[in-house]
Order: sequence, then C-alpha cells, then structure tokens
Amino acid sequence: MGSALAAAFVEAGYPTTIWNRTPGKADELVARGAVLVPFVADALRASSLIVVCLSDAASVEDVLGPHRDELDSRTLVNLTSGTSDEARGISKWAGDYVDGAIMAIPEVIGRPEAFLLFSGSAEAYARHRESLGRLGTTTFFGEDVGLASLYDVALLGVMWGTLNSFLHGAALLGAAGVDAAEFAPFANQWVSSVTGFVNAYADQIDRGVYPAEDASLETHLATMKYLVRESSAAEVNTEWPARIQAMTERAIRAGHAGASYASLIEVFRSRA
Amino acid sequence: MGSALAAAFVEAGYPTTIWNRTPGKADELVARGAVLVPFVADALRASSLIVVCLSDAASVEDVLGPHRDELDSRTLVNLTSGTSDEARGISKWAGDYVDGAIMAIPEVIGRPEAFLLFSGSAEAYARHRESLGRLGTTTFFGEDVGLASLYDVALLGVMWGTLNSFLHGAALLGAAGVDAAEFAPFANQWVSSVTGFVNAYADQIDRGVYPAEDASLETHLATMKYLVRESSAAEVNTEWPARIQAMTERAIRAGHAGASYASLIEVFRSRA
Ligand SMILES: NC(=O)c1ccc[n+]([C@@H]2O[C@H](COP(=O)([O-])OP(=O)(O)OC[C@H]3O[C@@H](n4cnc5c(N)ncnc54)[C@H](OP(=O)(O)O)[C@@H]3O)[C@@H](O)[C@H]2O)c1
Ligand SMILES: NC(=O)c1ccc[n+]([C@@H]2O[C@H](COP(=O)([O-])OP(=O)(O)OC[C@H]3O[C@@H](n4cnc5c(N)ncnc54)[C@H](OP(=O)(O)O)[C@@H]3O)[C@@H](O)[C@H]2O)c1
Repeated sequence: MGSALAAAFVEAGYPTTIWNRTPGKADELVARGAVLVPFVADALRASSLIVVCLSDAASVEDVLGPHRDELDSRTLVNLTSGTSDEARGISKWAGDYVDGAIMAIPEVIGRPEAFLLFSGSAEAYARHRESLGRLGTTTFFGEDVGLASLYDVALLGVMWGTLNSFLHGAALLGAAGVDAAEFAPFANQWVSSVTGFVNAYADQIDRGVYPAEDASLETHLATMKYLVRESSAAEVNTEWPARIQAMTERAIRAGHAGASYASLIEVFRSRA
Repeated sequence: MGSALAAAFVEAGYPTTIWNRTPGKADELVARGAVLVPFVADALRASSLIVVCLSDAASVEDVLGPHRDELDSRTLVNLTSGTSDEARGISKWAGDYVDGAIMAIPEVIGRPEAFLLFSGSAEAYARHRESLGRLGTTTFFGEDVGLASLYDVALLGVMWGTLNSFLHGAALLGAAGVDAAEFAPFANQWVSSVTGFVNAYADQIDRGVYPAEDASLETHLATMKYLVRESSAAEVNTEWPARIQAMTERAIRAGHAGASYASLIEVFRSRA
C-alpha cells in the first residue's frame, strides 16, 4: 500500500521522498522518479507532508517514535489501519496530526474509486487537501481524531456482513446446483435496493421511532425461520442465519414486534 | 400484498376477479373495477391464471386444498412466501404450478423496481409471462420448483446481513456522536464497491480457487479484531463482529490464511 501511495504522488508530479525498512522494495518507485533515502530522519526532513502506511500502530511507534522532534514543524498523515484509541495515542506525540483510513486496494489508489477517510487537525488537512486528493476521493470527518478509524471498521463491517450473507446464500443455492456466478447479479441488484432501506432506517434511527412502513420485525422473523430451515435442510451453515434470527427475537422480546427493522438498532446499541 | 397484485392487473386492464376471506378489504379494488366473488370456487373458475398470495403454505392449503379439481385446467401462481419444500409439496397437487417470490413491498408492485422470482412449470410460465410482467421485473429460474423460494431467502439473507452490519456500524459511530444519516451515504457508497468484490468472489467460488488478489483472510482478521475492540470500548454489541471474526478464524484454521475472502464459502458450506 505504501508503494501505491508513493506512486500516486510521483504520477501527480510531486517531488516524493521515500523510505522503507526493506529498501529493495522501492526499486520500481525509484525508477519512476521517487527519491529513496536510507534513514527515516532524511525522509522526514524532505517534506512538510509526511505520509506513513505501515503494518499497525506499533510499527508507526517503532519508526517515528525516535524522531518526534522532526515532526513538530510538519504534518503527519498516518494511513496505517488501527483503532480510534491508537489514533488518539499517536496524535498526542505527533503534533500536527491527521489520521486516515483507506477503503481501497492498492491497485485503485490514485483513482476516484479509492475512498480515503481522514480526521484530526482540520488546519493540517485543509493545507494538504489537494495533495491527499491525488490518492483518491477524500473525506474529512472533523477534529475527533478517532473518527477515520471508527468509520473504517464500521464500513468494513458492512462489507463482511454483506459478503458473509452472500457466501451463505451461495452455499445454499450451490447445494441446489446454482453457480455463485448465477446468484451474484441478483444479490448485487438486491443489495442496491437495500441501500434505499438503509436511508429510510437511518432517518428512523435518528428520530428514535421505527414505524413499520415496509415490513414489521414479526414479518421478517417468519422469513428468517425459512432461511434457517432451508439451511438446515441443505446441510449448510445455520449459525449465520440463526444469529440473525436470535437478534431479531431479542428485539421482539424488547417490544418491537410491530416495528421496522431499524428498531434492531437497540439490540446493537446494547452490550452482548 | 394481495391487494397490490390485483390492483396492478386492474391497472393494466386485465379483467380481474378477486376473493379474500375478509371481503371488506376488497372495497377499494372493486371501486377500481375488480370483480369480487363470494366463494373461492367462483374466483378459480373466472380465469385461466390464478394468482394467490396468502400468509403461508398452510393458508394456501386451507384455501385451495378443497378445490384441487378446479386447478387441473388452470395455472396456479403462488406468490405466498414459504420454503422450497413447501413449494414442492404444493406442486404435487396443484397441477400446472408456478411458485413465486416477491422481492418488494406492496407500494412498488407494478413498477420495474419490484422483483418477482419464479420457478416451476416452464410452459405455464411462458404462457403467462406477459401478465406476470405487469407486476414488476420477473425472472424464471427453471423447472426446479423450489428455486424461487431458495433465491428469496438467500436474497433476504443478504439484506439482513447488510442491514445488521449497517445497524452495528450506526450503533458504534452513534456512540461517538455520529448520526445514522451521516453514516448512511458512506455505507451505501461502500456497499456498491462491495458488489464488485461479490462478482470476483463468485468467479473464484465456481472455480474452487481463492487467490488473495485483494486481501488475504489474515489481513481481514487483523481489522476484524479492531472492530471487536472498538465495539467493546464503545460498549455496543460485540456478538455480531465476534461471529464474523470466529468464522474467519475457522477458515484460517482450515488452511485459508493466505486465501481471499471467498474461501469462507467452505465454512458456509459445512454444517455448524
Ligand atoms: N493492502 C490493502 O489492500 C490495504 C487496504 C486498506 C488498508 N490497508 C492498510 O495499510 C497498511 C499497510 O498494508 P500493506 O498491505 O501495505 O501491508 P504490507 O505489505 O505488509 O506492508 C507493511 C509495511 O510496513 C512495514 N513495517 C512493518 N513493521 C515495521 C517496523 N517495525 N519497522 C519498519 N517498517 C515496518 C513493512 O516494511 P518491510 O517492507 O520492511 O517489511 C512494509 O513496508 C495496513 O495497516 C493495512 O491494514 C491495506
Ligand atoms: N407485505 C410485504 O411487504 C411482502 C413482501 C414480500 C412478500 N410478502 C409475502 O406475501 C404474503 C402475504 O403478505 P401480506 O403482507 O399481504 O400479509 P397479510 O396482510 O397478513 O395478508 C395475508 C392474507 O392471507 C389471508 N389468509 C391468511 N390465512 C388464511 C386462511 N387460513 N384462509 C384464508 N385466507 C387467509 C388473509 O385474509 P384476511 O384478510 O381474511 O385476514 C390476508 O388476505 C406473505 O407470504 C408474505 O411473506 C409480503
């Protein structure tokens, strides 16, 4: 990912100084015009904008910890994945700090499909907004430095939930002889209908009322039971649909039988 | 839903005869031109195409069971939700039978956004395809009469998985002061990126190989742990992300650490 980020800056014509623990990995970037330096401190001194993308918060601490003084007069943008707590920790010593998260694979960095999320110093973000925009489509969530990380995992969660249910459906239909590639276009088309429900439910959540304008939890529960039964009959995984059913039953026990699916937010808000 | 289906036929100019256990519910349809009859048998004799939409398979049996003879020379299209087993059961006595599922709320019936899934008698479907097309966008999955029901629950599963993760993310971000309506557009935009991954994974599933062209399960696992940690720190539900993590760990134990997310299909294919 570090290579892809540096390449996007090089392609955009920015003078780009790079450092990596294993310097051999930078050969291609050097051939394209990046300047490889042997020490972290050299890289920090080369620019007012420092972008790091390492394995985790501990490696950021390893690499930058000994050079905190160099960061004082610079902006650090940290695109390493981590928790909001880790982002808050780094922001304490990293001065002019912007935390970031990348919702993309390296191949699409530099294109609008690459979504990059930022939070932290608004002033530093504004100053480097144009440069950061070379990496993809950027969003700034404000001064709460943990927000980029929180959005990151919340969005990854949406991906995992969607993919797991797709895989479960593919397993179920696969047992009936349907290829995953036959199921995929229906799943994708249906998912785009679901985005409409998401907007309506978001509004209900923020208002704290859940009128069942489409279907009630009780109606959902009836068809959830079909999914569990089909899974069981096809001898595929039942724990995933059973978990979905159990959470809905919990919301119904809490009094939401006649409410919309958005009322499940109360189950998700409570510890379990 | 029965009213919405009948209304679509009436609007399209088809002579439409209706029956409902509680006849008062049909007043509006009668005002629009539908013919209300007092007995089920009258309704069956009025047309070569019979469309039913009741609560469940048991109510279909209640209503049509005593009139099997009338169905012999007619096509029965059953849009009641149920399992593939129930569809197979009804097809045994319902003659020229097409089973169906509705992926829409009553309000959109008659519009292209209403998706209707069918399976069963190909000949009967072909004969009534045009009429059924007045209800929305239709797809026929072939002579395996259980397929419409299976697709139905598999797709609903994709909806529940997506919505649960959205609600979980909304709860997590909500704890940090972010409104659900602020999160929703990001979730929806990201979900449309996820549809691209679904296509790629479907192809891997059908080929039975899972090259990690984007990210390996091990990489996913690292960020799943962040989601669990954030949930725990925010005191919101952890069981949903923990289930996602547990299933990934199971796939990794089965040897897929370096494989793509599609390799989780093997966890979903096995009973649990
Ligand atoms: N790849 C993706 O699709 C993707 C997508 C979104 C976010 N991300 C995030 O981006 C970050 C990097 O991911 P990646 O895919 O580029 O991982 P990677 O290929 O494993 O690269 C990790 C980098 O961190 C360096 N590093 C790790 N520990 C170090 C230490 N103690 N001291 C110095 N350097 C150290 C490695 O140096 P060496 O080269 O010397 O090993 C390497 O340059 C991760 O936080 C990841 O979650 C990745
Ligand atoms: N509503 C949706 O958004 C939606 C979406 C997709 C699929 N569906 C499916 O469509 C079907 C109908 O749903 P709905 O929302 O229309 O439900 P509903 O409003 O509860 O209507 C159920 C209908 O079934 C009739 N019925 C039930 N048991 C009966 C019996 N033993 N004898 C005679 N009639 C009986 C009811 O008659 P009375 O009027 O006399 O009670 C009523 O007309 C369900 O399978 C549902 O899963 C609904």
